[in-house]
Amino acid sequence: MSGTPGTLYLVPNTLDFGIEGAQAAPLSDVLPLGVLQRAAQLQHWVAENAKTTRALLKRVDALVPLAAPLQQVSIVELPRPAKGAKAAPPADLRPLLAPALAGHDLGLISEAGLPAVADPGAALVQAAHAAGIPVRALPGPSALLLALAASGLNGQSFAFVGYLPVEAGARAARIRELEAASRRLGQTQLMIETPYRNAALLGALLAQLKGDTRLSVSCALATPEGFTRSDSVEGWQRRPAALPADRPAVFAFLAA
Amino acid sequence: MSGTPGTLYLVPNTLDFGIEGAQAAPLSDVLPLGVLQRAAQLQHWVAENAKTTRALLKRVDALVPLAAPLQQVSIVELPRPAKGAKAAPPADLRPLLAPALAGHDLGLISEAGLPAVADPGAALVQAAHAAGIPVRALPGPSALLLALAASGLNGQSFAFVGYLPVEAGARAARIRELEAASRRLGQTQLMIETPYRNAALLGALLAQLKGDTRLSVSCALATPEGFTRSDSVEGWQRRPAALPADRPAVFAFLAA
Repeated sequence: MSGTPGTLYLVPNTLDFGIEGAQAAPLSDVLPLGVLQRAAQLQHWVAENAKTTRALLKRVDALVPLAAPLQQVSIVELPRPAKGAKAAPPADLRPLLAPALAGHDLGLISEAGLPAVADPGAALVQAAHAAGIPVRALPGPSALLLALAASGLNGQSFAFVGYLPVEAGARAARIRELEAASRRLGQTQLMIETPYRNAALLGALLAQLKGDTRLSVSCALATPEGFTRSDSVEGWQRRPAALPADRPAVFAFLAA
Repeated sequence: MSGTPGTLYLVPNTLDFGIEGAQAAPLSDVLPLGVLQRAAQLQHWVAENAKTTRALLKRVDALVPLAAPLQQVSIVELPRPAKGAKAAPPADLRPLLAPALAGHDLGLISEAGLPAVADPGAALVQAAHAAGIPVRALPGPSALLLALAASGLNGQSFAFVGYLPVEAGARAARIRELEAASRRLGQTQLMIETPYRNAALLGALLAQLKGDTRLSVSCALATPEGFTRSDSVEGWQRRPAALPADRPAVFAFLAA
């Protein structure tokens, strides 16, 4: 490395991703102006998806003109981990950091929300720290934390556990295990699901959780139609709700 | 309740709180314009602290004129739970929701970051759900999630555990317990500390954690001097760092 490295900026994206046909919230409703200005300056990016990054930069350009034409902005995609390839050696990510080592600021962005949180990118951040590149996360929306705040459940102790098993028996066992941990630790449990399985996950939660466990579902938080419903499991059972199969949702529960 | 209730908006605050003498980041760097516009419209608030809420609304007013003079904006403080009074009956929060039940939108705000996340407010949100008041969380900065993203640790599975015990023996035992959970679950553990105890917590973590556990400290993320350092415990021991005693920090670790 010659000279001072650039900074790796973790740039938040909107929460629109995967919400087809919905009215997207205006960019200025979800991202601070300072973040848009920083994004407009960056000419080197590492992205979960180059296409959605270009689409975002076009929306940024309409509010804060990009410092360089979009065609000249370099966008390199993160390597996708093969599913179930946990034993495979992790990819060498240092080449992706070359612009920062050469002194340029570098952006890291995922398809929705904050990069490296419930999303790829953490390995690149780790590589940046190891290479002495300053890392700076920029504020923006996180579906997880918006859902937690809107749930009314315990925000002083919580765990995000990712996806639950798809197979019914394993999923039921996992739900009971998480409910026991929630009761023991007073800890809110947060999870996400592929939208077309929203109804299946809700059904499994209502079948497995105790009646006095509180369950909150936040759906499509980024859109005008977004909502949070938070009630006891018994309340959900008395007043059933259908969840949209094409909108991302965050599920949270807290045992009594 | 007569007619349609208003909405309870969970309004994010800046992360400046408790950072005396530091250069505050401009409001537009941390809060989306849409959030400032919503805050400027709200004439009924429930706040962790009325004084800091008024200070924020003055800063909002300089960017987006308030819909009503600040003197006419109603700000009611959340009841403060007495320390160690876990057995005390929770306060009846429904009177605080009266404006929403009368059809007015109501804002909930804490001293920093998102209300009801690592901050008071969850009980009011729960009361709103019980009363049929729609709840909407607005996007903004969260020191916890910014620290997690910048740590490069596992963002697919993490727990926020709040404060650790102050007493040395209990704190050491808690750190070892959390490290065991981190190893077993592959789960990043996030915690916070009162700033003047930053150095003591760092010392305890370095004394208790295994050398190959990765430890990240994010300090004063909202200010230009903010930084994240992420390294193995062994690396921290080889290259010690002094943490400021007057800046809030988020600590995160992940066992190997």
